[in-house]
Amino acid sequence: MTFSIAGLAVARGISIGRAVLVGASRVEVAHYFIEPGQIESEIDRVRCGRNAVVEEIQRLQEDIPADAPQELTALLDVHLMLLQDEMLTSGVKHWITDRLYNAEWALTTQLEVIGRQFDEMEDEYLRERKADLEQVVERILRHMKGVAHPVVPQSPRRKTQQDLMLDDTIDVPLVLVAHDLSPADLLQFKKSVFAGFVTDVGGKTSHTAIVARSMDIPAVVGARTGSQLVRQDDWVIIDGDAGVVIVDPSPILLAEYGFRQRQIEVERERLTRLRHTPSVTIDGERVELLANIEMPQDAAAAVAAGALGVGLFRTEFLFMGRVGNLPDEEEQYRSYREAVEGMQGLPITIRTIDIGADKPLDKGHKDTSTNPALGLRAIRWSLADPGMFRTQLRALLRAAAHGKVNILFPMLAHPVEVEQTLAQVRLAQAELDARGAVHAPVRLGAMIEVPAAALMVRYFLRHFDFLSIGTNDLIQYTLAIDRTDEAVAHLYDPMHPAVLRLVADVIAAGREQGKSVSVCGETAGDVTMTRLLLGLGLRSFSMYPSQILPVKQEVLRADTRKLAGWARDLIEADGLAASAQSAPR
Amino acid sequence: MTFSIAGLAVARGISIGRAVLVGASRVEVAHYFIEPGQIESEIDRVRCGRNAVVEEIQRLQEDIPADAPQELTALLDVHLMLLQDEMLTSGVKHWITDRLYNAEWALTTQLEVIGRQFDEMEDEYLRERKADLEQVVERILRHMKGVAHPVVPQSPRRKTQQDLMLDDTIDVPLVLVAHDLSPADLLQFKKSVFAGFVTDVGGKTSHTAIVARSMDIPAVVGARTGSQLVRQDDWVIIDGDAGVVIVDPSPILLAEYGFRQRQIEVERERLTRLRHTPSVTIDGERVELLANIEMPQDAAAAVAAGALGVGLFRTEFLFMGRVGNLPDEEEQYRSYREAVEGMQGLPITIRTIDIGADKPLDKGHKDTSTNPALGLRAIRWSLADPGMFRTQLRALLRAAAHGKVNILFPMLAHPVEVEQTLAQVRLAQAELDARGAVHAPVRLGAMIEVPAAALMVRYFLRHFDFLSIGTNDLIQYTLAIDRTDEAVAHLYDPMHPAVLRLVADVIAAGREQGKSVSVCGETAGDVTMTRLLLGLGLRSFSMYPSQILPVKQEVLRADTRKLAGWARDLIEADGLAASAQSAPR
Repeated sequence: MTFSIAGLAVARGISIGRAVLVGASRVEVAHYFIEPGQIESEIDRVRCGRNAVVEEIQRLQEDIPADAPQELTALLDVHLMLLQDEMLTSGVKHWITDRLYNAEWALTTQLEVIGRQFDEMEDEYLRERKADLEQVVERILRHMKGVAHPVVPQSPRRKTQQDLMLDDTIDVPLVLVAHDLSPADLLQFKKSVFAGFVTDVGGKTSHTAIVARSMDIPAVVGARTGSQLVRQDDWVIIDGDAGVVIVDPSPILLAEYGFRQRQIEVERERLTRLRHTPSVTIDGERVELLANIEMPQDAAAAVAAGALGVGLFRTEFLFMGRVGNLPDEEEQYRSYREAVEGMQGLPITIRTIDIGADKPLDKGHKDTSTNPALGLRAIRWSLADPGMFRTQLRALLRAAAHGKVNILFPMLAHPVEVEQTLAQVRLAQAELDARGAVHAPVRLGAMIEVPAAALMVRYFLRHFDFLSIGTNDLIQYTLAIDRTDEAVAHLYDPMHPAVLRLVADVIAAGREQGKSVSVCGETAGDVTMTRLLLGLGLRSFSMYPSQILPVKQEVLRADTRKLAGWARDLIEADGLAASAQSAPR
Repeated sequence: MTFSIAGLAVARGISIGRAVLVGASRVEVAHYFIEPGQIESEIDRVRCGRNAVVEEIQRLQEDIPADAPQELTALLDVHLMLLQDEMLTSGVKHWITDRLYNAEWALTTQLEVIGRQFDEMEDEYLRERKADLEQVVERILRHMKGVAHPVVPQSPRRKTQQDLMLDDTIDVPLVLVAHDLSPADLLQFKKSVFAGFVTDVGGKTSHTAIVARSMDIPAVVGARTGSQLVRQDDWVIIDGDAGVVIVDPSPILLAEYGFRQRQIEVERERLTRLRHTPSVTIDGERVELLANIEMPQDAAAAVAAGALGVGLFRTEFLFMGRVGNLPDEEEQYRSYREAVEGMQGLPITIRTIDIGADKPLDKGHKDTSTNPALGLRAIRWSLADPGMFRTQLRALLRAAAHGKVNILFPMLAHPVEVEQTLAQVRLAQAELDARGAVHAPVRLGAMIEVPAAALMVRYFLRHFDFLSIGTNDLIQYTLAIDRTDEAVAHLYDPMHPAVLRLVADVIAAGREQGKSVSVCGETAGDVTMTRLLLGLGLRSFSMYPSQILPVKQEVLRADTRKLAGWARDLIEADGLAASAQSAPR
């Protein structure tokens, strides 16, 4: 029976395919497809993990101190029973053998299957006992983490997908449905063939949304209990424009969405003709359109999309899921160099690690602070570990020898931080000189994303070569609204007069001093915001490669002389209902 | 053996006494002393609660569906064992009989005693089994919640304390040591004889800190594991100036601190002579010193301390721990009227409920949002439940008939919120008119505590009669720093040039329009900030009654002509190290 699930539209387009479910787990695990030849060894990995846990618990029981609460032994007995449960072991085998899931994925999938039985209990107390099962599985997963993973095949997708779909049309697209996707999973799945993402949690700027947009595939996040309503292999339509997921669609709906899918293709074709058109407004203002990228390999795509450079290369994906095993200088250098070389001489702005808040290094290692968005993140995190920070800086300075590199620092707000950051750069340069390593000068820039930074923009302009406005965070802090919090998300307003005033001030101050100011937040790639930002004086936009041509189309139709007056009025009108749609053509 | 615990100094002064421990619990429970005659009935309440839970679990076992995982029955068996454990029942009896703790306090105290045994297990897995015990106790507590509480004696403290201390000096002071104190507990303990507070968590502006300052008793918060290191009845010294707790002090230390205690008394005596001195600077500027209060009864203390009015009466304490049983209009009216009448004709500014973030209504009902400080709180919460909001407004408008009342709205940031708020006030007035209830006109004011509000202060001045700057939150959002987060608390800087600029702008805009602007955040009562705020143009300060005389002393010594130039330089100096200590005398 057809039904639909509403969520947030975060990456545009339509995709139609079969659902692949990825379960939630407290331990961060990898999800990938294995080769049929690996089935036996995967089952063996689970068996070894389980046996190890059984032995551990038995050892624990023997070692329980005499004065310990006597109920402990009984509790551990129950956990042993759970470990040896037939449902758990046979289910896991099924997912490995029949679906070619890797061992960890199979375990968490089966945990979810059994967990649903618990969830269906009417009594809350019985439902809560699910936690014991979760702990047992978690313990197996942790044990398996210590054991070497089999090598992930380099390009397993096409083949595996075909294997999976032998009983179905070859090449049927797969869409991923999950409660949440870890950054590590996103990295894995980015290489795969998935045609769309659906997650229960997340907002417009969650990592799932960012990755989907960077891959230019449809996605719906914030689908609440969506992952519980969809079953493995269900046919689903993801409508990334409306933010809706249609499950088990009727033939009429399938035909309708198939038609819309083709329409979108045609519109894309049309836009590609703008690729080589210079981005200049009607009144002759040149507008720089840059790309935001996530991975070194994205550099080529950015160039191909017609970007004049990369305005934001996020480096955190290098670090995700690498707790205890952070990339060393050499690994980082190779990665940055790959991105720099991929730019073919065009400039690339690389941001130092922006970890914390909604981007913890490790999902298992959740931020325990009450308000992570107001806590130890981004440059604060880097400055709290100067050794790690300088490792990144040295890698960046060395990569700069291979192209035009700008380094961008996130979340700076306090003069003390600015001084420390610049001192660390000088120290990194001195360290490279001391060992005779090749490196090159770079331009240094600051993100303006904390209200305090916007309010003292002249100080920042004195200390940096360029600025980049992170509108997502700037709006969040200026309005004190967490954009991912559903209870208040309706108050997250990029058009708030206070936000417009800060953005306009920063742009104006930059122009005054002849220094480049760009916007790299979500608003830069949002075609409904293009004219407003042009009106505020912005001449440099950085966005996902897929957004460049639609934004260029807006630029080509814009007249900044009319827009400037209109934007000024909006700011002055203080509180009168403002709408980006009211922009003059 | 003497040892000391470092925390944050949040309420000044020295106190010396014996420790009373209050345990942590996931269910919000009341903590109070019972009368000796109530011992039997308290023990009975625990017994009934436990028996009810035993029966419930047995019933659950019988009803488990046939297809449910079979381990469930075994899990429930273990929980039954835990319930009938001798340690649990005999321990609880001990706390009720020998310490006169109420039943819930006895249960959570014993949970902590047994919990420590679990904590001492070397293996993490064994330690985690503590959760089962906690769930069982939690279930008893929830059951007891449904059962009527015995009446809390109106003034049980003196007598109970004497009962407790029969084997010791009569009247030895007691200091409260807890992991955390719920607002409901604070309300209870505010009426009691405790001479000091120590909590493991919390920051300078946590509710424990606020209440301690309003009671003018020493407190140390953020003592980390302090509550685990102190045992019941340990002698402790709380040094509220240094933020240190000294446990089991040596006779020399006791003598030293006794001497300092008396010194502080002498200084207080000296300051009381300023009580009737008008608060005017050297250059003749009149400065309004107002009081922040928490409870209606505090109004009299505010007047006694020489306040010219109340600048902030927080109403949330009326609502704390009242989930499902919020005070109705009549109860609120009586409470506000008591405060208004206590002012003896002086004006009182009453703030509508500021719930959410660090002030959840119910501890058990924790805010699940990722960043509560950026979520549904204060006016956002009120506007999300207009019926509740208007109940408060009607009670306030009726209380206004008994004195000079101003209503203050917290956290306003968006023009939409301002419009909705003013519409709700008009509606509340109409509702009162419709039923012929007596009410009076009030002045309406807005808190300026979100950067967006400070940035559009002229809009706020057009819509409100007065403004009040909440420096705590304004600093927090402007710098994107959670002041209670230890990892970044060092970056929470009231002297940040961006903060000074916003505060100066708001004050200047208010003067321009001839409307009153006061500061009611922590900085207003901090004598090291008085000259800076005077320099920024502030002429109205609201603070704890105990801070009024020390601040008045600063005002009497200040020359605003010199301070204004110095403050302007500080703002202009953008990023040069600023210090409030550098103010000209």
